[in-house]
Amino acid sequence: MAHLEVPKGNFFEDFTVGQNFQHGVPRTISEADATLYLALTGSRFPLNCAFTVAQSCGFNTAPLDNFLVFHVAFGKTVNDISLNAIANLGYAEVKFEHACFAGDTLSVSSKVIGLKENSNGKSGIVYVHSIAINQFDQVVVSWKRWVMVAKADPEANQTETVIPAYDTSVSPEQLHIPEELSFKNWQPHFSDNQLKLDDLSIGDVIFHRDGMTINDSDHSLATRLYQNNARVHFDQHMMNDRPNPHRLVYGGHIISMCRALSYNGLGNIAWPCAINAGTHANPSFAGDTIYCQSEILDLMALEDREDLGLVRVKMLGIKNNTPDNMDSMFVEKDGKRRHHSDVVLDLDYWAFMIR
Amino acid sequence: MAHLEVPKGNFFEDFTVGQNFQHGVPRTISEADATLYLALTGSRFPLNCAFTVAQSCGFNTAPLDNFLVFHVAFGKTVNDISLNAIANLGYAEVKFEHACFAGDTLSVSSKVIGLKENSNGKSGIVYVHSIAINQFDQVVVSWKRWVMVAKADPEANQTETVIPAYDTSVSPEQLHIPEELSFKNWQPHFSDNQLKLDDLSIGDVIFHRDGMTINDSDHSLATRLYQNNARVHFDQHMMNDRPNPHRLVYGGHIISMCRALSYNGLGNIAWPCAINAGTHANPSFAGDTIYCQSEILDLMALEDREDLGLVRVKMLGIKNNTPDNMDSMFVEKDGKRRHHSDVVLDLDYWAFMIR
Amino acid sequence: MAHLEVPKGNFFEDFTVGQNFQHGVPRTISEADATLYLALTGSRFPLNCAFTVAQSCGFNTAPLDNFLVFHVAFGKTVNDISLNAIANLGYAEVKFEHACFAGDTLSVSSKVIGLKENSNGKSGIVYVHSIAINQFDQVVVSWKRWVMVAKADPEANQTETVIPAYDTSVSPEQLHIPEELSFKNWQPHFSDNQLKLDDLSIGDVIFHRDGMTINDSDHSLATRLYQNNARVHFDQHMMNDRPNPHRLVYGGHIISMCRALSYNGLGNIAWPCAINAGTHANPSFAGDTIYCQSEILDLMALEDREDLGLVRVKMLGIKNNTPDNMDSMFVEKDGKRRHHSDVVLDLDYWAFMIR
Repeated sequence: MAHLEVPKGNFFEDFTVGQNFQHGVPRTISEADATLYLALTGSRFPLNCAFTVAQSCGFNTAPLDNFLVFHVAFGKTVNDISLNAIANLGYAEVKFEHACFAGDTLSVSSKVIGLKENSNGKSGIVYVHSIAINQFDQVVVSWKRWVMVAKADPEANQTETVIPAYDTSVSPEQLHIPEELSFKNWQPHFSDNQLKLDDLSIGDVIFHRDGMTINDSDHSLATRLYQNNARVHFDQHMMNDRPNPHRLVYGGHIISMCRALSYNGLGNIAWPCAINAGTHANPSFAGDTIYCQSEILDLMALEDREDLGLVRVKMLGIKNNTPDNMDSMFVEKDGKRRHHSDVVLDLDYWAFMIR
Repeated sequence: MAHLEVPKGNFFEDFTVGQNFQHGVPRTISEADATLYLALTGSRFPLNCAFTVAQSCGFNTAPLDNFLVFHVAFGKTVNDISLNAIANLGYAEVKFEHACFAGDTLSVSSKVIGLKENSNGKSGIVYVHSIAINQFDQVVVSWKRWVMVAKADPEANQTETVIPAYDTSVSPEQLHIPEELSFKNWQPHFSDNQLKLDDLSIGDVIFHRDGMTINDSDHSLATRLYQNNARVHFDQHMMNDRPNPHRLVYGGHIISMCRALSYNGLGNIAWPCAINAGTHANPSFAGDTIYCQSEILDLMALEDREDLGLVRVKMLGIKNNTPDNMDSMFVEKDGKRRHHSDVVLDLDYWAFMIR
Repeated sequence: MAHLEVPKGNFFEDFTVGQNFQHGVPRTISEADATLYLALTGSRFPLNCAFTVAQSCGFNTAPLDNFLVFHVAFGKTVNDISLNAIANLGYAEVKFEHACFAGDTLSVSSKVIGLKENSNGKSGIVYVHSIAINQFDQVVVSWKRWVMVAKADPEANQTETVIPAYDTSVSPEQLHIPEELSFKNWQPHFSDNQLKLDDLSIGDVIFHRDGMTINDSDHSLATRLYQNNARVHFDQHMMNDRPNPHRLVYGGHIISMCRALSYNGLGNIAWPCAINAGTHANPSFAGDTIYCQSEILDLMALEDREDLGLVRVKMLGIKNNTPDNMDSMFVEKDGKRRHHSDVVLDLDYWAFMIR
C-alpha cells in the first residue's frame, strides 16, 4: 500500500522539441452540445441553429459552430500541455477545415514545435502545433499556440531553445471553404436583414451594443462541457489564496460570448474559417459584463463566388465598460502600447461572409 | 471607414398597421431542448418525458412541452417587436395547433394589428399577431400580444390609432387537439395517481406547495436557449443604473416554473392547448423563490371522448410568499383591484386533461 | 369549490411491509442527458464520451454513465418514498445490470422491505428495494436503501418492526458485466495513459488533487434533470428558517462530482458495477469546494479475462479541505468513530478496471 501520486501534468522541463502527444478522452459532439452552446452563449447565427437554413446552404444538417468545435478540441490539450500554465500567451494559424456535425468524434494530438526557457529559470514557453481529426481522419481544426509553463524544479536544465516560425496571419489561399457551402439560396430574413459583405469597408468599426453578464455557473458549465480541466476555472478554495481571489473565466468562453454578441451588426459573418491571432488581454470573473466591438481589417471577393466573400475582423471583448466611454482600447505604459485594463479579448479572425 | 450603427430594434414610430415581419433565426428544436428544459424547470409531465408514455398516447415519440415551444417561438419576435419595450402588457389567443417534435424547425412571422400612442407622447402600444410554423408550413402556435414600446423621437407623429379586437378567452371550438392524442391507454401511475378531470369542480383552488428559487444562471440559460435577446435579462452593467438594479427574469421562465410546480396536484393536465390571457404582474429577480396556485375556472366534457376533457385554469405565480400567509392575491389601490405585490404571474389557460 | 389538498408524500405511518410502488414519470434518457452530465460534472471517462471508444469496447454506441442512470432512477422514487425524509441513512446492494443507452426509457418500482419506528415516536426508518427497468423489461439498476421518514401524526401506531437483511458488500459473483464489454482494443491514450489494475495494490490511497466548487445553479440543474423533487434542494424561502439556512446539495451530485474528480488518477476505472455502501456524512452547500480521495479496498483478476479485472474502492468526498491538511478522515466522538466534519461522502463501490 502506498500514497500514489496522481498525474500533475507536464512541467517545462518535461517537454522536448519534436515530442508528440496523443491526447486523452476522444469526444463525440452531439446535437446537445450545439443546444447547450446556445444556452451558454445566446448565439443566433442561423446556419448553426436550423436544419432548414443549413440545407439551403448545401449541408445535410446544421454544422456545429466552429468556435464550439475549437473549444472542445482545445480542451483535450490542457491535460498534457497547459495544466501547469502560468499564462496562455497566444495562438496563431487556427484553421478550420472540415465542417463538424453532430455525431462526429474528435481526437486531438499535439507536437511540441518550440521551447524557450525564461531568464528567471522558473518557467519557460512551450510552443505546440495541435490537430483535431474526426472519425474519418479528416482534419477539423488545427492551430499553434504558446503558453508559459512552470518548472517543477528550478534547477532543471532546459537548454534547448527553439522558437518556431508561425504566420502572423493565415494567407487567404490557405483558408478552407466547406465544399457544400453556398449562400446562393440565403434568405436575408434568416439573419435579420443585416449588413452584407458589400456594405462594409475596411476600417469600419461596429460596437455591438448588447452586454452579457457572466454567472459562475455559466462559465463552469461551459468549461466542463469542453472537458478543460485547468484548476483555476473550478477550484475556489485554491483561488482564495490568490491576490485576485476568484475563479478565472476560461478565455474561450469570452471568445464565444463576443462572437454571440457580434451577431447584432455582423450577423452575416456566417463561417469563421481561421484565427490569425488571439490575446486574452485581461482576466474575467463572474459578475463581469462583457461587451464586444469589431473592426473590419480586410475584405476580399472570391473568384467565381457571388454568394460570399472573405472578411477579416478584429474582435475586442470589453468588461464593464463600453467603447463610447473609452478614449481608446489601448494605453501607453512604459513606452509600450498595451490593451486598456477593461479589454479582455483581442481576436483577429477570418470568416466567410454573405454578400 | 466609419462607426457603423448596429440594429437597435424598432421604435414605436417605426411600426405601421398591417406591417409584416418575417423574423430572423429559424430554429430547429432538438431532444436537447427538451432535456435542458427539464433541467431548467424540473418539469415532470410524463407525456413530454418518456417515449413509452408518448407512444401509449398515440405519438411516435415524445412531443415537446408546449410552453417550451412557445418560448422559442416568442423569442424570435423580440428582435423586431420588443427590443425597445417598456412593458409587456399582455397576450391573448395563444393557440397551440400542431404538436412539435424533436427535429422540427420553427419559423416565426408577425403582423402589426394595432397601434396606439400614449398621451405622454413618449411611447405607444404595439399590437401584433404572431405565427410559428414548422418545416411543413403547419401552424404550431399563434398568438396576439401587446407591448408598450418607446419612441426614439418624441416629436415623431404616430397618428394612426387602431385597437384590434381580440377574444378575452379562446372559445372551446377553436381549440386544437392533436389527432393522435388519446389517453385511453394511460396508466395512472404515469402521473403519480393524481386527480383526474372528474375529481375537480369549478372554483377549486390548489396551492401546489413546492417552491423553487431562481438562480441567475438558471434564467440566463433559459432565456438564451430561447434566443430572446432583450437586454434587461442579461446586462447587469446596464441594470446597475436602474432603480431596481437587477437583471429581470424573463416572464416566460416564470410561466414554465409555475407549470412545473403545478404538476404536484394537477399532474394530469397533460396538454395545454391555449392561453386566454397572461399578465406578468410584478418583476422577478434571481434569489426569488416562486410558488404556484391554480384555480379551476371551467371544466368541460368532450363529445365522444371518455379519455379526456377540457379544463380552464387560472395559474398564479407568487414570490417569496405562500397563499396561506396572504389574505388575497389582490389588493385595492386607488379604487382599482390590483395584484398583490408578491404575485408575479396570472395566466389563464385551457388544457386537455386526463379523465 | 374547495381548497384541494396536494399530494404531500407518504409519512412513516403510511408504509407497510410488502407494499409496492410503481413510481410516476417514466423517463427516456437521451444523448442530451449524457452531454449535460458532462457539463455538470466535468466527467472525462472516455467510454461514456466517444462513440469511437465505445465501439472499440464492443458497444454500438456510448453507454450512459452508470451514476447518471442511478440518479435518474433514484429521482423517480423520491415522490413516494422520501418526500418527508429527515435523513437518507444509507444504501446497499446497488447493482448495475444492463447497460443504458440514449433512447432507453426507465421505469422504476419499489417494495417496502422493512420498517422500524424510532423510540421518540416522531419518525421511523423505511427500508425499500427499488428496481429500474428499461423498455425491454431488462433490469438496468436495482438497490436497497433506508431512510428516516417523519410521521404526520405522532400518535399513529406503527407496531410492525421488520429489519431486512442486506449484504454489506455485493459479492463478486453477483456483479454484472455487460456481455459486449471488452477492453482488448483499448488504447492507453484514451484515458491519458493512467494506472492500470495491475499497477495498484490493496490499501493504496490516491488523493485526486483537483477541486470543484459547487454553484447553486449547478446542483439545481442536476437535481431537476434527475426530476428529484425533494424540497430541501430548491426552496430557499423555506430553508431560510432552518438553523443552516441554505439549500442542500443533492448527495448524488456529490457522488458524481467525486467520480469525475477521481478520473485524475483512476481514469481506467471504466465501469462501476455496484455500490456496496454509501453515506452522506455531512451536508454540502453552494460555495463548497469538493475534493476526492480514493482507497483501494480490493483487487481481483477474473477468469479468462486479460483485459479487465475488479477493483473495490472507498471514495471519499471532502469539502473545503484536502487530505494533506487532515490527520484523519475520521474522528473519535463520544467513544464512536465518526467522519471528520469536512467529509461529505463515503462511498464503497465495485468497478471493472482496465488491466
